[in-house]
Amino acid sequence: MIKVAIAGFRGKMGSSATNMVLEDARFQLVALLSYKKDITNLNQLSQYQGENVPVFSSKEELVETVKPDIWIDFTSPDIIFDTLSFLIEHDIHPVVGTTGLSKEELSDLQKRASDKQLGGLIAPNFSVGAILMMRFAKEAANYFPDVEIIELHHDQKLDAPSGTALRTAEEIATVRESKKQGHPDEVELLPGARGADVDGIKIHSVRLPGLIAHQQVQFGAKGEGLILRHDSYDRSSFMAGVALGCVKVMNEQELIYGLEYLL
Amino acid sequence: MIKVAIAGFRGKMGSSATNMVLEDARFQLVALLSYKKDITNLNQLSQYQGENVPVFSSKEELVETVKPDIWIDFTSPDIIFDTLSFLIEHDIHPVVGTTGLSKEELSDLQKRASDKQLGGLIAPNFSVGAILMMRFAKEAANYFPDVEIIELHHDQKLDAPSGTALRTAEEIATVRESKKQGHPDEVELLPGARGADVDGIKIHSVRLPGLIAHQQVQFGAKGEGLILRHDSYDRSSFMAGVALGCVKVMNEQELIYGLEYLL
Amino acid sequence: MIKVAIAGFRGKMGSSATNMVLEDARFQLVALLSYKKDITNLNQLSQYQGENVPVFSSKEELVETVKPDIWIDFTSPDIIFDTLSFLIEHDIHPVVGTTGLSKEELSDLQKRASDKQLGGLIAPNFSVGAILMMRFAKEAANYFPDVEIIELHHDQKLDAPSGTALRTAEEIATVRESKKQGHPDEVELLPGARGADVDGIKIHSVRLPGLIAHQQVQFGAKGEGLILRHDSYDRSSFMAGVALGCVKVMNEQELIYGLEYLL
Amino acid sequence: MIKVAIAGFRGKMGSSATNMVLEDARFQLVALLSYKKDITNLNQLSQYQGENVPVFSSKEELVETVKPDIWIDFTSPDIIFDTLSFLIEHDIHPVVGTTGLSKEELSDLQKRASDKQLGGLIAPNFSVGAILMMRFAKEAANYFPDVEIIELHHDQKLDAPSGTALRTAEEIATVRESKKQGHPDEVELLPGARGADVDGIKIHSVRLPGLIAHQQVQFGAKGEGLILRHDSYDRSSFMAGVALGCVKVMNEQELIYGLEYLL
Repeated sequence: MIKVAIAGFRGKMGSSATNMVLEDARFQLVALLSYKKDITNLNQLSQYQGENVPVFSSKEELVETVKPDIWIDFTSPDIIFDTLSFLIEHDIHPVVGTTGLSKEELSDLQKRASDKQLGGLIAPNFSVGAILMMRFAKEAANYFPDVEIIELHHDQKLDAPSGTALRTAEEIATVRESKKQGHPDEVELLPGARGADVDGIKIHSVRLPGLIAHQQVQFGAKGEGLILRHDSYDRSSFMAGVALGCVKVMNEQELIYGLEYLL
Repeated sequence: MIKVAIAGFRGKMGSSATNMVLEDARFQLVALLSYKKDITNLNQLSQYQGENVPVFSSKEELVETVKPDIWIDFTSPDIIFDTLSFLIEHDIHPVVGTTGLSKEELSDLQKRASDKQLGGLIAPNFSVGAILMMRFAKEAANYFPDVEIIELHHDQKLDAPSGTALRTAEEIATVRESKKQGHPDEVELLPGARGADVDGIKIHSVRLPGLIAHQQVQFGAKGEGLILRHDSYDRSSFMAGVALGCVKVMNEQELIYGLEYLL
Repeated sequence: MIKVAIAGFRGKMGSSATNMVLEDARFQLVALLSYKKDITNLNQLSQYQGENVPVFSSKEELVETVKPDIWIDFTSPDIIFDTLSFLIEHDIHPVVGTTGLSKEELSDLQKRASDKQLGGLIAPNFSVGAILMMRFAKEAANYFPDVEIIELHHDQKLDAPSGTALRTAEEIATVRESKKQGHPDEVELLPGARGADVDGIKIHSVRLPGLIAHQQVQFGAKGEGLILRHDSYDRSSFMAGVALGCVKVMNEQELIYGLEYLL
Repeated sequence: MIKVAIAGFRGKMGSSATNMVLEDARFQLVALLSYKKDITNLNQLSQYQGENVPVFSSKEELVETVKPDIWIDFTSPDIIFDTLSFLIEHDIHPVVGTTGLSKEELSDLQKRASDKQLGGLIAPNFSVGAILMMRFAKEAANYFPDVEIIELHHDQKLDAPSGTALRTAEEIATVRESKKQGHPDEVELLPGARGADVDGIKIHSVRLPGLIAHQQVQFGAKGEGLILRHDSYDRSSFMAGVALGCVKVMNEQELIYGLEYLL
């Protein structure tokens, strides 16, 4: 069993990760880090009464006491560089969802990890399904240059288009020649009908109550269509990606940025 | 059997109607009208070799020779008023897809048809499926005020949004209180992402090769969604509406505008 | 404001209803019934600390103390007949999701409610979206007799097809002439490919993790298709139906069975 | 320009290929083969009046007169082995949609083509979209072992499931461990509800008028779903695959079986 510690285990992603590690037979949850200092064992929380896992308030103390193989981190951007430096120094494989490193910091950490041949993962997105959708979209665009993206989210979302839709369009734009979707003489009778434009790829953002997070990449060609759709119903879907990352980094020799490079 | 004549039978809609009438056992094709004067019988055309149906070049001659019950018309706007006047005068039920009448002309014709208790139909849209989609959308909007429309067409279409999408939004707007879809503070990072706006209802127009004519009306509410989708694959789909119109007008006493009033 | 009491408020549906009544400005939550006798006020439960609502352990005491307009009931089948008798006697409008009445009991209660001109609702299904889907499906089947149903649920569901799919097929069967879907000579190379059969209507049951509760009623005709789809993401979706029931029964004069008769 | 000859140009696939080659600027249509002997030039057919392309009734005469680079073949199984032998001998790249070779014949032809380092293609399926869908399905199944297939076709189709659905399931079965989809205790209240079974993968076959040829591969995992859908609207969609094959075989050194190996 792989020994796992989790930092930031009381946030949304961290608590999902805690549940995942407890339930997955490949992992043993050996320690938790919380700077709150209000508890010293997970079983002091009502929802985890049967779970005997020590909670530390210092990473040094945690590592001295129990040496984890993997360190899952969903803490905050301001401490992540220090944490990663510390983990590399102590030969602990990081699996990190916290973002906010500068390019220089990332490249510095990657060099140090490679020197020690230590596998690790920093991932802004742990959704295996979303990553596959983007990968397939990029591959399909080699053969089907005509494509539009429809992304659908709950109506509490403030930004449109979604980050995933923008990334998908940017990925597609790297493999297809730039072209504007639709007839060259088309007329928008009402502004916005034809959606947002990223290098000629149209993006349409639907916002409705009840929806969660969905994206459809729709390709068209003479006489046929190809649709790639990802539906994200809840945060638990990210945990397959976290688990995959934990297993894979054990056999890697570098600090990888992006879950897609482990799929 | 209902005796049917067809004017404009060499156009796209007219030739589809001709095939429909020939195949539908409820109808007998008794005459055709063509101002071209190049043939006098349908069997002179290679694709209709077995069909013995006289072709006339004057509506008066047609009606004197064979008295049809129904007159299907897919000719041009400039002659449709005269044709309808003539049909009402001769007690022939019109089923007309040609548009272009002024309000005054329409109301004049409707009065005359009512005086003679003659059933007839003028329909800008013969798609039963599209009409049901609009009807259901309007009914659903009473319970689900949050709605967006996605319409998808081939990339040779010049206008966006489609006429059907606009009509659907206008119909919905008659039953829901005006509201803007999405979060009040939402930000369009790229213009057009949130689509066109008709009374707060968002319309998204997708244009791709391969597609034909499709529309999805998508409702959302707390914890659920309702989707109404119509796919139109080819012109033959309109013929069910034409056939329905032909059967129904036999028992009507007025000149109806819009197939929806016969469904 | 309509004064509402809730019985069975600690079950899944009952607690959803409690939250709905607390949040909806049209309603005032005046009392709760719980036979557990462990609390006397809702604010004794940690998640409802700010809510001062008395909890009774006897329906008689509840009604003597606070006279509610509406009684929402999600208790158990064995007491529902007594409860409904009691409510009718005391002129309180019932809105009941508990099922299990015999035909005789139902008809007895309906007679008594009509005698007193008391509006009430017993509903086995509070999903407005599902009811609209079934209604639209039935209407569409008048014009599109060719139809198949695809229902998709999480893979913990034990029965297939779903109850909603069966009811939808039965409703459709009342308006279309019986016909077997597909080509008369079709051959199932593998048994089950063509789905289950209800009066010739095919039902396909998909079971996958991640899915919640979804149904697609798919009609086809020459050159076109019409799809009605309902997605149910969580129990909160039923509360729109409960709220609608509460408002509507105030103006009814009988005990209605089925939310569809209030839509 | 690549010089192309077409055999079987009067069948459905062959005439689509003829139109494609005439329209695609990368190709020059230099000759056609027809055993009918009724015409000697394509311009003798009314729909090709402007096209001056010789029509031969013997492959030997064709090759002696005009030496094509590529030979597209949509003829019949009984002559395809001879044709391929002849093409390899004369260093003409075959792009063949005709099936029916035995394993021995295929392997014999492949050896001879490799000896001469002649690129060629035999493809039972020229749909790029369908091939991508199958490829993506296979890749996704590595991460999402829970999957069901819904294939939807017009109601004139006699067999269910479709060949493409069966092949997709077989491909998926090569990468996922065998497992039965759904809850182990699930009960089919009506036989067939849960579809056909291929190594535990469920296949559902929908047959409706209006539909053409569609397939949806639906994956589910905790909290998410991934859908791959291919819609085939008409035969013209295969021509992108034929064109791709023609371009690619020019740079190949062997006789490839299956368009997927050129994508």
